[in-house]
Amino acid sequence: MKGLTLDEHAAPGVVRLALDLPAPARPAGEALVRVRLAGICDTDLQLAKGYMGYRGVLGHEFVGEVLACDSASWRGKRVVADINAGCGDCDDCRSSDGHHCEKRTVLGIVARSGALAEQLAVPERCLVELPDSVSDEQAVFAEPLAAALHVGHGTALGVHSRVAVLGDGKLGLLVVISLAALGVQPILIGRHTEKMRLVAALCRQTLLEPGLADGDVQACDVVIECTGNAEGIRRAIGLTKPRGMLVLKTTVAGATSVDLSPVVVNEIQILGSRCGNMREAVAALAGGLDPTVLIAARYPLRQGEQAFAHAATRGTLKVLVDPLAG
Amino acid sequence: MKGLTLDEHAAPGVVRLALDLPAPARPAGEALVRVRLAGICDTDLQLAKGYMGYRGVLGHEFVGEVLACDSASWRGKRVVADINAGCGDCDDCRSSDGHHCEKRTVLGIVARSGALAEQLAVPERCLVELPDSVSDEQAVFAEPLAAALHVGHGTALGVHSRVAVLGDGKLGLLVVISLAALGVQPILIGRHTEKMRLVAALCRQTLLEPGLADGDVQACDVVIECTGNAEGIRRAIGLTKPRGMLVLKTTVAGATSVDLSPVVVNEIQILGSRCGNMREAVAALAGGLDPTVLIAARYPLRQGEQAFAHAATRGTLKVLVDPLAG
Repeated sequence: MKGLTLDEHAAPGVVRLALDLPAPARPAGEALVRVRLAGICDTDLQLAKGYMGYRGVLGHEFVGEVLACDSASWRGKRVVADINAGCGDCDDCRSSDGHHCEKRTVLGIVARSGALAEQLAVPERCLVELPDSVSDEQAVFAEPLAAALHVGHGTALGVHSRVAVLGDGKLGLLVVISLAALGVQPILIGRHTEKMRLVAALCRQTLLEPGLADGDVQACDVVIECTGNAEGIRRAIGLTKPRGMLVLKTTVAGATSVDLSPVVVNEIQILGSRCGNMREAVAALAGGLDPTVLIAARYPLRQGEQAFAHAATRGTLKVLVDPLAG
Repeated sequence: MKGLTLDEHAAPGVVRLALDLPAPARPAGEALVRVRLAGICDTDLQLAKGYMGYRGVLGHEFVGEVLACDSASWRGKRVVADINAGCGDCDDCRSSDGHHCEKRTVLGIVARSGALAEQLAVPERCLVELPDSVSDEQAVFAEPLAAALHVGHGTALGVHSRVAVLGDGKLGLLVVISLAALGVQPILIGRHTEKMRLVAALCRQTLLEPGLADGDVQACDVVIECTGNAEGIRRAIGLTKPRGMLVLKTTVAGATSVDLSPVVVNEIQILGSRCGNMREAVAALAGGLDPTVLIAARYPLRQGEQAFAHAATRGTLKVLVDPLAG
């Protein structure tokens, strides 16, 4: 089968379309899934640059249909899946969601072949069924949407909260869309007028960053950092009210130079936030949440390398890859 | 009167004993307090190096007696005081403790003359009366003890929590003593066997840092960072369990280079924690908590410059300054 891979010999940032991959093995308890549509995420771009040292088929955003599995009830179902495959046996797997299982594999990120391919294997317990009302184009957003909705967990977000989202990339815009679903109208701070326009109706205010001084924005109860750069983290700390909360949604690979003294002086709470609950995302999609405005382009899998290069172009929103189109 | 001051012309790190300061003015609503005993804190050492740009009489740890005030009930009382003097009128002052009032002055730190002197003025609403059972030597620890006890606020500390304290300086040891009062036996990680020995009986374990590898310590539910250096913050992040909490108790002046990606990947919560509740500290002292084991030396105020130099010597615990001894 075809698949978009990172191999040992690849130059940093370069992926290769393999044409002759073996079909995935299906261990007991796992489902073989035919990919209907997959998305390229900024994490994929970082993985291609060497983050996590991953090698193999990329991709963790997908919608597919079950070709084979142990439980007859799943066969033929249209599904998305939690990308974290925990061991099922540790404290975290038993008492929580396995997202912090020390033995977990993660789809297309840690020791598990990803979704930018014709087929993949996923543990049955990770599968979430899609209702017919949710299109493939919506469903392919389920994973990043779950991560975006996850900002509502552990934070004191209320309809009266003053909330800022930093960054108008894919994740920042998806967080704005998610906040709207939670009844919160954020201030969005970004660098691209045309991207902010896509979600402006959901925002209390959109502010263009170059030229924005710290004093121009009133401090916020909750600040959600989605820029993934050191400057964003610095601004986010400055923008958080005393005893307010700063949610870090994006990883900045490597060391960042930050002045942490305002965190202590202002008694700010910083919350690292990663993956969310896929059922919650599917329920939100079924309830009418529509992230498809974020689609920038769609390529057949055979043009996967071009798709990846397009996604890596600065400022590009969601690039989809369609294995069914060949 | 005599007072230990930072003046415009002082070289970095150098304080001067002024012999001819005017007695403090006493605005309406404030109490004139004679200092019985004062302590030197690491923040004082940092202020002397230029932190916050403070100029004037240093000192914010003290016990004293009220010489004059508007309310007759306070006269002659032995007191400690909240060092944060809020405006009394803003949201933070009305609904909380004024510790984040934007107009606050802070004793010996922000626009308010400090306690390393014979007398000082303090708002009456900041005063906390001392019971006779609490000695001056205990009471002079009330302010840092309040800050140490403050780690119990907003954190999920339980008797079964696995807790680590990083740093065996004054604050680290005081945090260990405070945790004991909360029923928690922490792991203490420090660099000085003789200092850790002072509180070893309160610890589950003490670990000497040079040579300690990250893998040598099992991850903790709560990690309390009291080293005030970048290496401590790095270790603290690595030592915090997924979905655990890291409490930052000390400010690291200036930018620190930190890899924040584990905060996101492990969904760690970082809580900045500053001043505490003075009533809580006095109640703990009255209940038998005894931090006097941390006293390293006691100087008369007339030897204040020597006291400061001693406190600035690496590894020194609490240095007290006694204005009554002249």
